[in-house]
Amino acid sequence: MQVSHYPAGLFEYKANKELIIRLKHDADLVQSIIELARNKGVEAGSFTAIGSLKRAKLGYYDQKNHKYREIKIDSPHEMVSCIGNVSLKDGEIFAHMHVVLADEMGNTKAGHLFEGIVFSVEVHLRQLEGPKLERKYDEVTALMLWVTE
Amino acid sequence: MQVSHYPAGLFEYKANKELIIRLKHDADLVQSIIELARNKGVEAGSFTAIGSLKRAKLGYYDQKNHKYREIKIDSPHEMVSCIGNVSLKDGEIFAHMHVVLADEMGNTKAGHLFEGIVFSVEVHLRQLEGPKLERKYDEVTALMLWVTE
Amino acid sequence: MQVSHYPAGLFEYKANKELIIRLKHDADLVQSIIELARNKGVEAGSFTAIGSLKRAKLGYYDQKNHKYREIKIDSPHEMVSCIGNVSLKDGEIFAHMHVVLADEMGNTKAGHLFEGIVFSVEVHLRQLEGPKLERKYDEVTALMLWVTE
Repeated sequence: MQVSHYPAGLFEYKANKELIIRLKHDADLVQSIIELARNKGVEAGSFTAIGSLKRAKLGYYDQKNHKYREIKIDSPHEMVSCIGNVSLKDGEIFAHMHVVLADEMGNTKAGHLFEGIVFSVEVHLRQLEGPKLERKYDEVTALMLWVTE
Repeated sequence: MQVSHYPAGLFEYKANKELIIRLKHDADLVQSIIELARNKGVEAGSFTAIGSLKRAKLGYYDQKNHKYREIKIDSPHEMVSCIGNVSLKDGEIFAHMHVVLADEMGNTKAGHLFEGIVFSVEVHLRQLEGPKLERKYDEVTALMLWVTE
Repeated sequence: MQVSHYPAGLFEYKANKELIIRLKHDADLVQSIIELARNKGVEAGSFTAIGSLKRAKLGYYDQKNHKYREIKIDSPHEMVSCIGNVSLKDGEIFAHMHVVLADEMGNTKAGHLFEGIVFSVEVHLRQLEGPKLERKYDEVTALMLWVTE
């Protein structure tokens, strides 16, 4: 039983640059991270962010039907949490991130982030130095996941 | 279109010390981070924390009227997420953090953290070595944001 | 008043390896982190994770009665946030983590994570090099907390 929970993929890195970023007002959070990573040569990275969004498109992945359901957030929200990573998909830089949003009563909506229009966002992105981190199609989940191979 | 999402501010650091901290029971989370950063000479930093709070004051920033609305949390909650950063405002160490709280049913309240009284909190603060990270008044949002200049 | 919020415990580390991990489908998130930390010799660490869970057992700590209340999550959820740390308890590697989950409407449930069955989870675990980080019984909270001594 010792190894039953052992990861499907494990990649070792050394921290390189730590980037602190103030995103552009009215930019899209997802595209901003991608553009930044591309520009700074970050092909593997990890980040957190806080701030506020004007509106957003969240996703919930249906684990049975293997499809994303979209959740539209049409009003301004605090972005109380954003955790994500940068890796490669089809040779291109890809950013995967999940967010928690809060309204004026402190009530929350959360999910995978497809799009988030920035009111004000502060990001801390850590550039990782090491093996290539690539996503490939995974049969079991129908998601693009990191593969050791 | 290549540069449309490019950040308004970008600052490069090297990681210095990684501080693991158990906060004092009954202390305020915000003041604890500030005092700690001041004492350890952390003028730029990034942190995450988990734990539980006795009570808290959250904020929601009204993007139209440019004012914070306060949300009082008067009962004990798990602090299921806390993400924040340390920088300078008017030459003084300033801590900006957002939290998600959960009650005994697992229901959440979240927002900008103004005050949070510690029941038990564990912090991981990364000290960043590099350029001065300073907040200045931003006309568009009426918030104090990081400026490259 | 200068020192009133000063931490109860403060430990200084240098970052060692940065581990990027794809967890095994159907594994338990908590056990996966423990097994991984044990296998890689991580006795002090900090991590974030995102992904989705098939089901989970969350906890809310009753600050008065000093007991955890269990919250069962029996359906698939996005794991929109997971923040945690690795340290020692009774000489064994121990993982403490809090999660926020979201359903198909973006509604959330959150708490201390006792068990979380992985659909797909991506972890970033930072190995910390420095003093022993050990949990001991704390009279005030009846929790196992880090002690300087």
